[in-house]
Amino acid sequence: MVRIGIAGATGYTGLELVRLLLRHPEAEIVALTSETYQGKSVAETFPSLKGFCDLRLQPLDPRMADACDVVFLCLPHTAAMSQIPELLKRPARVIDLSADFRLRDAEVFEQWYHARHEHPELLGKAVYGLPELYRERIRSARFVANPGCYPTSVILALAPLMRTGWIDLDSIIADSKSGVSGAGRKAALSGQFSECNEGVAAYSVATHRHTPEIEQELSALAGRAIRVSFTPHLVPMTRGILSAVYANLTRDLTLEELVDHYRQHYRNEPFVRVLDQGTFASTRFVAGSNYCDIGLQVDPRTRRVVVTSAIDNLVKGASGQAVQNMNLMLGFEENVALNAPGIFP
Amino acid sequence: MVRIGIAGATGYTGLELVRLLLRHPEAEIVALTSETYQGKSVAETFPSLKGFCDLRLQPLDPRMADACDVVFLCLPHTAAMSQIPELLKRPARVIDLSADFRLRDAEVFEQWYHARHEHPELLGKAVYGLPELYRERIRSARFVANPGCYPTSVILALAPLMRTGWIDLDSIIADSKSGVSGAGRKAALSGQFSECNEGVAAYSVATHRHTPEIEQELSALAGRAIRVSFTPHLVPMTRGILSAVYANLTRDLTLEELVDHYRQHYRNEPFVRVLDQGTFASTRFVAGSNYCDIGLQVDPRTRRVVVTSAIDNLVKGASGQAVQNMNLMLGFEENVALNAPGIFP
Amino acid sequence: MVRIGIAGATGYTGLELVRLLLRHPEAEIVALTSETYQGKSVAETFPSLKGFCDLRLQPLDPRMADACDVVFLCLPHTAAMSQIPELLKRPARVIDLSADFRLRDAEVFEQWYHARHEHPELLGKAVYGLPELYRERIRSARFVANPGCYPTSVILALAPLMRTGWIDLDSIIADSKSGVSGAGRKAALSGQFSECNEGVAAYSVATHRHTPEIEQELSALAGRAIRVSFTPHLVPMTRGILSAVYANLTRDLTLEELVDHYRQHYRNEPFVRVLDQGTFASTRFVAGSNYCDIGLQVDPRTRRVVVTSAIDNLVKGASGQAVQNMNLMLGFEENVALNAPGIFP
Amino acid sequence: MVRIGIAGATGYTGLELVRLLLRHPEAEIVALTSETYQGKSVAETFPSLKGFCDLRLQPLDPRMADACDVVFLCLPHTAAMSQIPELLKRPARVIDLSADFRLRDAEVFEQWYHARHEHPELLGKAVYGLPELYRERIRSARFVANPGCYPTSVILALAPLMRTGWIDLDSIIADSKSGVSGAGRKAALSGQFSECNEGVAAYSVATHRHTPEIEQELSALAGRAIRVSFTPHLVPMTRGILSAVYANLTRDLTLEELVDHYRQHYRNEPFVRVLDQGTFASTRFVAGSNYCDIGLQVDPRTRRVVVTSAIDNLVKGASGQAVQNMNLMLGFEENVALNAPGIFP
Repeated sequence: MVRIGIAGATGYTGLELVRLLLRHPEAEIVALTSETYQGKSVAETFPSLKGFCDLRLQPLDPRMADACDVVFLCLPHTAAMSQIPELLKRPARVIDLSADFRLRDAEVFEQWYHARHEHPELLGKAVYGLPELYRERIRSARFVANPGCYPTSVILALAPLMRTGWIDLDSIIADSKSGVSGAGRKAALSGQFSECNEGVAAYSVATHRHTPEIEQELSALAGRAIRVSFTPHLVPMTRGILSAVYANLTRDLTLEELVDHYRQHYRNEPFVRVLDQGTFASTRFVAGSNYCDIGLQVDPRTRRVVVTSAIDNLVKGASGQAVQNMNLMLGFEENVALNAPGIFP
Repeated sequence: MVRIGIAGATGYTGLELVRLLLRHPEAEIVALTSETYQGKSVAETFPSLKGFCDLRLQPLDPRMADACDVVFLCLPHTAAMSQIPELLKRPARVIDLSADFRLRDAEVFEQWYHARHEHPELLGKAVYGLPELYRERIRSARFVANPGCYPTSVILALAPLMRTGWIDLDSIIADSKSGVSGAGRKAALSGQFSECNEGVAAYSVATHRHTPEIEQELSALAGRAIRVSFTPHLVPMTRGILSAVYANLTRDLTLEELVDHYRQHYRNEPFVRVLDQGTFASTRFVAGSNYCDIGLQVDPRTRRVVVTSAIDNLVKGASGQAVQNMNLMLGFEENVALNAPGIFP
Repeated sequence: MVRIGIAGATGYTGLELVRLLLRHPEAEIVALTSETYQGKSVAETFPSLKGFCDLRLQPLDPRMADACDVVFLCLPHTAAMSQIPELLKRPARVIDLSADFRLRDAEVFEQWYHARHEHPELLGKAVYGLPELYRERIRSARFVANPGCYPTSVILALAPLMRTGWIDLDSIIADSKSGVSGAGRKAALSGQFSECNEGVAAYSVATHRHTPEIEQELSALAGRAIRVSFTPHLVPMTRGILSAVYANLTRDLTLEELVDHYRQHYRNEPFVRVLDQGTFASTRFVAGSNYCDIGLQVDPRTRRVVVTSAIDNLVKGASGQAVQNMNLMLGFEENVALNAPGIFP
Repeated sequence: MVRIGIAGATGYTGLELVRLLLRHPEAEIVALTSETYQGKSVAETFPSLKGFCDLRLQPLDPRMADACDVVFLCLPHTAAMSQIPELLKRPARVIDLSADFRLRDAEVFEQWYHARHEHPELLGKAVYGLPELYRERIRSARFVANPGCYPTSVILALAPLMRTGWIDLDSIIADSKSGVSGAGRKAALSGQFSECNEGVAAYSVATHRHTPEIEQELSALAGRAIRVSFTPHLVPMTRGILSAVYANLTRDLTLEELVDHYRQHYRNEPFVRVLDQGTFASTRFVAGSNYCDIGLQVDPRTRRVVVTSAIDNLVKGASGQAVQNMNLMLGFEENVALNAPGIFP
């Protein structure tokens, strides 16, 4: 049995890790940390876990890694940063769900996160944990930076196009819509039900911190620097991200060709589903699952392609992908604990 | 492998059965019927199933049972009725999720459902599939009438009290709140998003058809005829039923005694969780799971007990309970395919 | 023009007062206070007000009353208490939307609110601002304690029955369902969208602080001490309270008689609508309006009456009722600024 | 008093017209039609109107116009078409909320609506009822084609830019998110609460019928043919449309310049509000009101402008705009009956 520790277990991504790992036949959760609820049992905090996990929540301490084979960090951005060096001294594998080690360039980090990076020397040590891009490197990684939710949805939508020459690489626009759980589990006025319900709004237009992460990976795929317009929106639902990604075509292309190309590109991917012509992605059908659904359209009138992608932000956008990474790192089947359809309705 | 057929697979309870049975290591779905979508594959109809189940939807025909070990009927009330005789001629076990064979008295059926019962002679053949009440009879049953969603939530809330003598059996009031999926998957103005959202209302006050089902089982438990006031409400959420059940106490009782009594009563039940003192049931923590959570209160001022119970109407209130019944009927562990916590948030 | 001041203008009830008073042809808002947003303009804080009200938010100071004819207090419970003596020294009329002066007995206050009342000597000075009960006293009042949202919905549901002798006064049970805005505008984990959405739960069962307020008024109506079982629930919507109120009948009664009696009782009430037989109250049709809709049922099987009542908790349950009280106090038509139907859908 | 008739009064736009016109001091509703509910009173159908409007719903008949000064048509697309000739023979002014006479080219209509236009000869007779574009023509119009909801949000977002030369007119992408009420009031599976809730999805990507309407008006503004990429989405809320509109800049531009330009452009518009720098449009703050809020961003990295616009689809996107048009046609102040802030929360 693989021994698992989760730092920050009472946030939404930590809790979702617990839910998913309970299904994992080879994993045993042995340590959970929480600053807010330390001393209480996790089942007392979340009655959904009653009968499943009764671990007591302990304060954060890198020494937890001594008793673990894998440590997941579900801490707020910039809080994970200082824990990593101590953790990496230990043999446990580390999967960091924060943004702290996703960017490979400390300057870019500081520019978008408005914070100094305390350990720029470790930036190169982390493998970016998007299996569809870095599967082989993840297999042998000891330290994985788990991708952001928006980047997962946008990068998977675009990856098959980046080397085709079919699109103008300077024309990419990503318009994303997220459920409220993406903001994390914390008391905030902006996240109150009465403030969010019956409303949709864009935020951080052209300045959202996931932009450089998207650009870093699209640039790596394209082999040249890519800039994208990225607009996140908040919509009144709990889970899910839908992205609509636009690009100008540089050649004539039929929808059939496009769908075929995407199917070919993702043919061996266990968690990417390319939808039939005429079907667009909906968060409804991936909720609770690790799937990324992709629906395609070609608009010959405007000579543009529109890619819609849907994920559950807490699963493929966070904890499910983290488990997928763990499976790869430990040599398990990639879909263990994740091989379940979404919950509909 | 147990071969499974589901009649009415494209309604919410049929679809939920598919989702749950996909987790079942001993079950294989071999036949799905749908009048509306016949000829299409189920994954085309519900993209969430893409990659999991590709069966073609066939028209309803009792002969489907020839190739099945278990047939689940997820048909509208009164539509199941006429299928049962043909189905029962075959060796397959039958679990009927409709209301058609839950009541043991044809007259009561006709009075509340305003329809003639076509097969009153079969009413006594069905075992009422609430394992917490009829586990042993279900084990040997060939034909199970799966309980209604509201009755499951109300009966489980009251069962431990019915023989104690602690409450006035003529004082029972059940006030229930249901998510909209309880109305089934059909085009109806009353179920439109814009009609339901931001609204809560009672309906069928004192006349709802689940009333005689609740009364039948409470009467059996009490050993005398019981009448209850039952008020269902529609609330703007997809899944879940919360019931608040009131009864007058006939003696002084502390909350501690009450909680102890419920814990004792349900100590061996795999799917009933009695919450700690001061915690009331919330549908939030049972969503997607087969659990019934029960939270208790004693009000010494008014000398009443208040029992709150929460279920997912599509799981413990329908398809999960049906799988639980199947497990019992076939000698599997009762919680196979159901042993998972709810999905939160 | 009547000059209006609102203390606590950036909570939901304060903001709703602004919205309603903007429609009032005789009222001019001259002062708004807010601790959190002081110095900002109210339209900057709430873009909905852009173009309507540009007042700068000032810190709380009872001297604001010097420039006002009416001061509304929209402060949290126990915070209003200390402001009242200074305010009452001034000529302005005061309408307090907090709970601080609704109960006439300081001991009862302290028992349910777990706080000492700082000004018990003023408890008798406030008129309980439910026009359907105290219209004449409100007309001449200088200090009105505006009723709570739950009490408004429950008292109006029961008032016509309290002196009829038709119900057992010891059998009253009120089961209420509220939208999340009832919890006020503040950063709290429990009010987060992802914590509330897709969930319904009871809270403060048998211990909610609105219980003594309900009992005080029902007792006054009945002419004897009344105790009720009161269970509030949170449902995933922003606005609205639906109450289902149960009582045992002491005589045979037809639904027709009951509806007639309610229509007769409320025949001159501008904001109570008794629905037709077979129609139950829904928050959907009162949202945004000052109406209380009442739907009735008689259950001859259990010899009980069920009264359903629906209000918008922020209008008839708070700010609309406060404007109604102001209209009465100042001799305006009672429905000025309130004479509008709900917003549906 | 102006006598008003509404054909199709029991759909959402018809009902919203009733709600708004009840506030209009110069208007009296004299005739309402409904096929579905004919013979019933409108207040029986919508309890929100109880006490406000008790008109009996009559079957559709163009002769209703004989008793009216203004007739609003709230009929489904292609159903309005055949009523218009008879209506126009009468002196009443006609405001058609359907799409039937918005496009000036019958071929374009037939291409996008897949239906033959029965009265192409009347296409040129209707004035496109967007006051911000055609105020003067509307004043003298007898027949107004009221704009679509999506087009209103997209055209108002872009109008100030179309003649500046600041953007590449071939680069326009509009990504819109609508509440479910936009689909109208009808029994449809796709609009069921359980199908829509907790989900967001794009639909009719690159093929939505509002596209040619947007292009017609943007082309008229630009003085050349414009093509746009338009992607509508359904989000789980009742009311509201948020559009994010993207265009490539052809020159350097600061956000300050852009905001100033929009403020200047819309300085006399009663229902367009240009938000402060750093504030993006939210449907939350326009709900229930006739406002279009516009929030702006310039992205120097990608040299793009992003315009966010928010409307209530049933008010500025339909019935409010229709009343605004009526006010103009009859010489009333443009904002009569519309001069109210949105309802928040």
